[in-house]
Amino acid sequence: MRLSERGRTIQASPIRKFKPYADQAMAQGIKVYFLNIGDPDIPTPRVVAEAFHAYEDEVLNYGPAQGFLELREAIADYFRSYNIDLKADNVIITVGGSEAIFFAFCVVADPGDEIIIPEPFYTNYNGFASYAALKIIPLTLRAEDGYHLPPAREIEKLITPRTRAIVLCSPNNPTGTVYSREELEEVIFLARKHDLFLIGDEVYKEFVYDGLSHVSLLEFDEAKDRVIVADSISKRFSCCGARIGAVMTRNEEVYQALLRFAQARLCPPTVEQRAALAAYRLGRSYFEPIRREYQKRRDILYEGLIQIPGVILHKPQGAFYVNVKLPIDDGDKFVFWLLTEFRMNGETVMVAPGSGFYATPGKGKDEVRLAYVLKEKHLRRALELFRVALENYPGRRH
Amino acid sequence: MRLSERGRTIQASPIRKFKPYADQAMAQGIKVYFLNIGDPDIPTPRVVAEAFHAYEDEVLNYGPAQGFLELREAIADYFRSYNIDLKADNVIITVGGSEAIFFAFCVVADPGDEIIIPEPFYTNYNGFASYAALKIIPLTLRAEDGYHLPPAREIEKLITPRTRAIVLCSPNNPTGTVYSREELEEVIFLARKHDLFLIGDEVYKEFVYDGLSHVSLLEFDEAKDRVIVADSISKRFSCCGARIGAVMTRNEEVYQALLRFAQARLCPPTVEQRAALAAYRLGRSYFEPIRREYQKRRDILYEGLIQIPGVILHKPQGAFYVNVKLPIDDGDKFVFWLLTEFRMNGETVMVAPGSGFYATPGKGKDEVRLAYVLKEKHLRRALELFRVALENYPGRRH
Repeated sequence: MRLSERGRTIQASPIRKFKPYADQAMAQGIKVYFLNIGDPDIPTPRVVAEAFHAYEDEVLNYGPAQGFLELREAIADYFRSYNIDLKADNVIITVGGSEAIFFAFCVVADPGDEIIIPEPFYTNYNGFASYAALKIIPLTLRAEDGYHLPPAREIEKLITPRTRAIVLCSPNNPTGTVYSREELEEVIFLARKHDLFLIGDEVYKEFVYDGLSHVSLLEFDEAKDRVIVADSISKRFSCCGARIGAVMTRNEEVYQALLRFAQARLCPPTVEQRAALAAYRLGRSYFEPIRREYQKRRDILYEGLIQIPGVILHKPQGAFYVNVKLPIDDGDKFVFWLLTEFRMNGETVMVAPGSGFYATPGKGKDEVRLAYVLKEKHLRRALELFRVALENYPGRRH
Repeated sequence: MRLSERGRTIQASPIRKFKPYADQAMAQGIKVYFLNIGDPDIPTPRVVAEAFHAYEDEVLNYGPAQGFLELREAIADYFRSYNIDLKADNVIITVGGSEAIFFAFCVVADPGDEIIIPEPFYTNYNGFASYAALKIIPLTLRAEDGYHLPPAREIEKLITPRTRAIVLCSPNNPTGTVYSREELEEVIFLARKHDLFLIGDEVYKEFVYDGLSHVSLLEFDEAKDRVIVADSISKRFSCCGARIGAVMTRNEEVYQALLRFAQARLCPPTVEQRAALAAYRLGRSYFEPIRREYQKRRDILYEGLIQIPGVILHKPQGAFYVNVKLPIDDGDKFVFWLLTEFRMNGETVMVAPGSGFYATPGKGKDEVRLAYVLKEKHLRRALELFRVALENYPGRRH
């Protein structure tokens, strides 16, 4: 049987494809430190469990396609607390940020259309591009520039008659870069000039360090009609397994189209929406100690990594990832070796190989992404394992 | 801003698009009987609530992309109890049956490819075809034939070089028809002859009446490599709001492709998978009284409807829908009128207009779908309202 082209070519997740080897290692009694996936270890707020405990419906019914009004209102309130002018009717609840991105892709582009994404980028965009049969045009960024955006004229070279949108993820996964207001203004200028949509992936909004603050695409009134933003509670409230996100726009026609996409899949999970509502009601102050904890971890990881000879990285300003260049032959081989061969006192460490975060063939082969989602003690141990592993890796380049 | 073509053309759900008018009627104090949507009123098994109550994880983490092994095993066991040879490694847990269908569409077909679906069909296939940019080729069935399939040579006329799959929903939504083993064998013969995939939507598997039993596409060893089946707990356990389904195949290459599609969106909801596991552990006997209840409702609705002059229908053998032809100008107008004008003792009834269940333009305009998801007393009242409404509808044809 011949599968579809996308069925044959859709990327295996570089974050997850090595999981079976990690499972094997654990089955052998090896302790694995997981720096490969952004699944936070910060306790989920207790109100989430309480929302599950309060479930007493006689029937677990469908909810509205766009999500429950109370939750959409709570999200709009939350964004208004950041001086973003948003109403419940600008918000559709989605099944995680994943679905938000996918719906946004579908609404702006048809098969074969192009969307420009700075690379390295969140690897699952590749999957959503396969879902929607779009073409990702990578805008290659450089570690030396801290993965900041190049001038508008550089981005403009990538625009063709088929370009439909530019995707900006800030704070960025996997680089940790936070785009400045000026950078965003340059891109907005381009989007207006070429009549493009702007898709913002802002799920790490609160994860900004060193006193910086996140600038949302939703703050720009001049781009109001062309901005679609994906959001999620996964990282904000350590709720990855709840699968609650949101897609937001102030363009009414886009909203109605997103709503029809939402109707086709009926609704997001009912009980998790109540849990999300309870989490939003905690207010913004809930997040401050968590931000401080992540900043501390960022510092530990960064300070540790820059002391390892041959490791090239920039200091991330946000999210909870760092993308590093290593003196190695191939990130995939390195990760495979970590899981199947490298052991130190019965322990090893897992990271995500970098090539999957690039669309340009060959790029990122000597890079890996590390997520700082472990407590200080474990993070320090994982770092030590990583250092020793890198020294002893047979594919190390000298 | 120019939206994508699919953004502009994706169908508004005929099941849900009139919901705002129903909400308005209810806000005016009108009681609305909902026969428009297949959201069962049968109590969800208590073990589902108990699974929510037992949630005590410190962090609500991601689960595996393919779903938890225990649940996949429970589902395989369940199907084996129907003499279907299925293993946990043939099952991927999805976000509802919706995602199962969408992933199946993506794996078999690329944009512009064709899939043949007997019409009337579950309207949301239109939405998934927009997601995946496929072309649905309708095979028009007739009420007079009880919406059974025509001979293979009739279906064959629709096959072109771009045909990639045939979708069979049995027990059928919206017709209630249950395909016989012989009907399925004819289609399998065609699929083998033209090397097509077969996608089975079998989410109403247990809902078969009059002593009939459901035949699954998974039962045919000769089609083992070409069959992909979508399943869901939504109807089986009255768990529509849980968003737990499954996609199943014994073709290993197809399985691996489905898994990569699943990886891109990370995982299905974590806690609901535990709830689903608890429900599956109830065993098949759980469903028997529910089947009897639905059969009773089917009889009430059918007996009531055939007595209304001008109503044409066949007796459904499964699922919980009946598709009826009415002496009306336009199903959309009829539903709008039911919600905004028709009232009897402060009550009205809502149904789903038929045209959305057809891909052929103009078809189904004088049809509506009714779901028998109400308790006997309410169903009888809804039927009475429907009868009187139809008599008094200004767009009635004489």
